[in-house]
Amino acid sequence: MSRWEPGARERLVVAAVDLFVERGYDDTTVAQISERAGVTKSTFFRHFPDKRELLVAGQESLSKLLADGITEAPADATPLEAVAVGLERASAEMGPRNRALGPRLKAAVAASSELQERDALKSVGMAAAMTAALETRGVPEATAHLASEMGVLAFKQGYARWSDEDGSEDAGLAPHVLTALEGLRSAAASLA
Amino acid sequence: MSRWEPGARERLVVAAVDLFVERGYDDTTVAQISERAGVTKSTFFRHFPDKRELLVAGQESLSKLLADGITEAPADATPLEAVAVGLERASAEMGPRNRALGPRLKAAVAASSELQERDALKSVGMAAAMTAALETRGVPEATAHLASEMGVLAFKQGYARWSDEDGSEDAGLAPHVLTALEGLRSAAASLA
Repeated sequence: MSRWEPGARERLVVAAVDLFVERGYDDTTVAQISERAGVTKSTFFRHFPDKRELLVAGQESLSKLLADGITEAPADATPLEAVAVGLERASAEMGPRNRALGPRLKAAVAASSELQERDALKSVGMAAAMTAALETRGVPEATAHLASEMGVLAFKQGYARWSDEDGSEDAGLAPHVLTALEGLRSAAASLA
Repeated sequence: MSRWEPGARERLVVAAVDLFVERGYDDTTVAQISERAGVTKSTFFRHFPDKRELLVAGQESLSKLLADGITEAPADATPLEAVAVGLERASAEMGPRNRALGPRLKAAVAASSELQERDALKSVGMAAAMTAALETRGVPEATAHLASEMGVLAFKQGYARWSDEDGSEDAGLAPHVLTALEGLRSAAASLA
């Protein structure tokens, strides 16, 4: 098996999620995940430190896309408009494979408290990245925190709806996320 | 040592946080925590399943107080007024010991990714409890989610300010949490 294996990282994620759903997270080993993905254990460890980190693969790049979008939004953009730019960038990275993985990922996380904790921390990391980028734009602290939480909620709700719906006529994740963000903006108006 | 030990649970929490700060979370054992608290390991395990759960002790009772307050708020209360009732109930449970523990707890969590994950899941649990209680009141889903996230942020911000400030003239946690909630309500108005 060659050292360079195109698609190995993605195959490992898909294999892991399938095994977590089939056997449970605790009873799934790195050896089983590697075998299912058709790679060696060494290849696994070149991509991930352990089986848990595999499920939050991409968290850092998502957080960076969110923050970059906020930073590069037009100077006159409102905080939520800046968040929307960040969400569009992050959504553009999510393709058909991410979509197909959604329901199984949800099932795997629902069945494991360890994965729930890792998943919760992932949301905290995304919110923190957005809050810092908003504060750099001069957005007041409380507003930055709230706008970031709305961004995280919109991303999660949009992803859930995108993953759940019929696969035909797919316009990508972004429209779902932006619709969810608009729903949360209305909710903010009703609470204010 | 008698089986009934008043204050053992609280002494265990204080001892654990001190040891986590002094030695690091990973290098602290249940035996050391028990010894520092002056109880046996059996007593430890009558109160907590492991050292990690000890730091989120009270999460379920906090979530219940938040939800009960929301449920029992006047019928004509707005969603945020109902959240404020929940926050007041939960705040009333936090006494001088909780306050004194704040800075050390923060240091312990900051130094351990495992505790960060558990802490993040605690916030998710509190938000879920509030969202469910708000939806039962007939609050629309997006509004319920957002109001709950505001409640969690207000509780965390209020607790941080309460713990950080000079200990004299302490009026309790509630005023700090309600001030933070009002700040977030203003932020929602600015975002809407």
